[in-house]
Amino acid sequence: MAAKRIEVIGVAGLPEVTPSDDLTTLFVDACGRENLTLVDGDVVVFTQKVVSKAEGCIVPLTDIEPSSLAAGFAGREDAKAGKDPRLVELALRESHRIVRMDHGVLITETRHGFVCANSGVDASNVGVVDAATTLPSEPDRSAERLCTAISERTGKRVAVIISDTFGRPWREGVVNVAIGIAGMSALRDYRGQNDAEGRSLASTVIAVADELAAAAELVMGKLDRIPVAIVRGFAFAPGGGGAAELVRDAAHDLFR
Amino acid sequence: MAAKRIEVIGVAGLPEVTPSDDLTTLFVDACGRENLTLVDGDVVVFTQKVVSKAEGCIVPLTDIEPSSLAAGFAGREDAKAGKDPRLVELALRESHRIVRMDHGVLITETRHGFVCANSGVDASNVGVVDAATTLPSEPDRSAERLCTAISERTGKRVAVIISDTFGRPWREGVVNVAIGIAGMSALRDYRGQNDAEGRSLASTVIAVADELAAAAELVMGKLDRIPVAIVRGFAFAPGGGGAAELVRDAAHDLFR
Repeated sequence: MAAKRIEVIGVAGLPEVTPSDDLTTLFVDACGRENLTLVDGDVVVFTQKVVSKAEGCIVPLTDIEPSSLAAGFAGREDAKAGKDPRLVELALRESHRIVRMDHGVLITETRHGFVCANSGVDASNVGVVDAATTLPSEPDRSAERLCTAISERTGKRVAVIISDTFGRPWREGVVNVAIGIAGMSALRDYRGQNDAEGRSLASTVIAVADELAAAAELVMGKLDRIPVAIVRGFAFAPGGGGAAELVRDAAHDLFR
Repeated sequence: MAAKRIEVIGVAGLPEVTPSDDLTTLFVDACGRENLTLVDGDVVVFTQKVVSKAEGCIVPLTDIEPSSLAAGFAGREDAKAGKDPRLVELALRESHRIVRMDHGVLITETRHGFVCANSGVDASNVGVVDAATTLPSEPDRSAERLCTAISERTGKRVAVIISDTFGRPWREGVVNVAIGIAGMSALRDYRGQNDAEGRSLASTVIAVADELAAAAELVMGKLDRIPVAIVRGFAFAPGGGGAAELVRDAAHDLFR
């Protein structure tokens, strides 16, 4: 039997993405230049950054007047050196709820239900001076649009994930996770299945979309200008309810 | 330029692992049967389950007398149906500190500093009736031993990760993470590097070992008897301080 294999392929060569660009066209053209041909079952992972830029989720910081709360937090001694009060203000505006705001760290719940640092506001790699990107307003719909457009352009049935790097409690470092999903289920569910001894499995629901996003990050890097990756060979389950499926209901969350 | 590619290869065909087995031999033999040849720079990811079994971290549940605390928690109405008080007792014994014990969920900090459900105690796929596995006592040393033995047997310079599936606050589903690491740095650090506009990067430290573990899970599955995966093509940084580097210091953790 041939070994089970998955391939993660970085798609380089996209130009700087701007709000006037069609991201599907940029992606398909870049694949052509790199001699990459999509196949049925590919998962295409886009970074949040390029999706936000293409959708115009770019906020000039010159337009932002920091509140007293933002200015106070940015200026605190335990805040990271050089914290920009305008970025703090934008993160507060993008938040739905403050989860932690201490030791110079701002963890918020976004309107999508994601819990992450600074509401996903990011001033790096924006492509515009003195501006920041915000998360796409409806990342599952963004993924759906990309999924449909890629399938139309290539004739291949693919799934699409939009990824962002999130921190985690208890563990150092950030990892890529899925914030928008289309064409596949976010979760692989083993409930009701048994091991060789007939015992039901303990960890029964795997967040495969997050694992796919993590795998994609390994070829992306932060400075390599590889904002898209193709994961090939993973037998995903079609359908599903998008990245919204990954958001734990507040009533079942012990850490909000 | 050829596209940047990473391959994740499942290694099937290992027999049921027991404490008398040499895991390196089982792995090398399985690679031979599957016609897989290691190359320099491969990352070999082992599930915690096979490492724990090979190291004899198997506890017969018949030996466990549940405490009143364990019995009370297991019997609570909001606990999952069929919660075994002996497993709860074992999880408590394996814990260093209780992080949450509510709604039928037991989140502990292990002696290694990991925060996870049930101290990593797991009764599925043990290979022995009425028994559970515990985490390896020193997973970084386990990884180190495997790394050295594989390099000696194959002549190839590899890194080794021991993985387990952990839940996360705020997000549904579990994902594979690294609990033991040898031969590579757990983190990729972009601090001090700038984007195209000269702005320093926001998310600067990536937990690449966790992303590699996540990628490996995609070929492993829970029922496929694929307890090892090879990740090929990732340019890891040698050295590092093991999975201990991934444990956030309590003083800097806002969620303990």
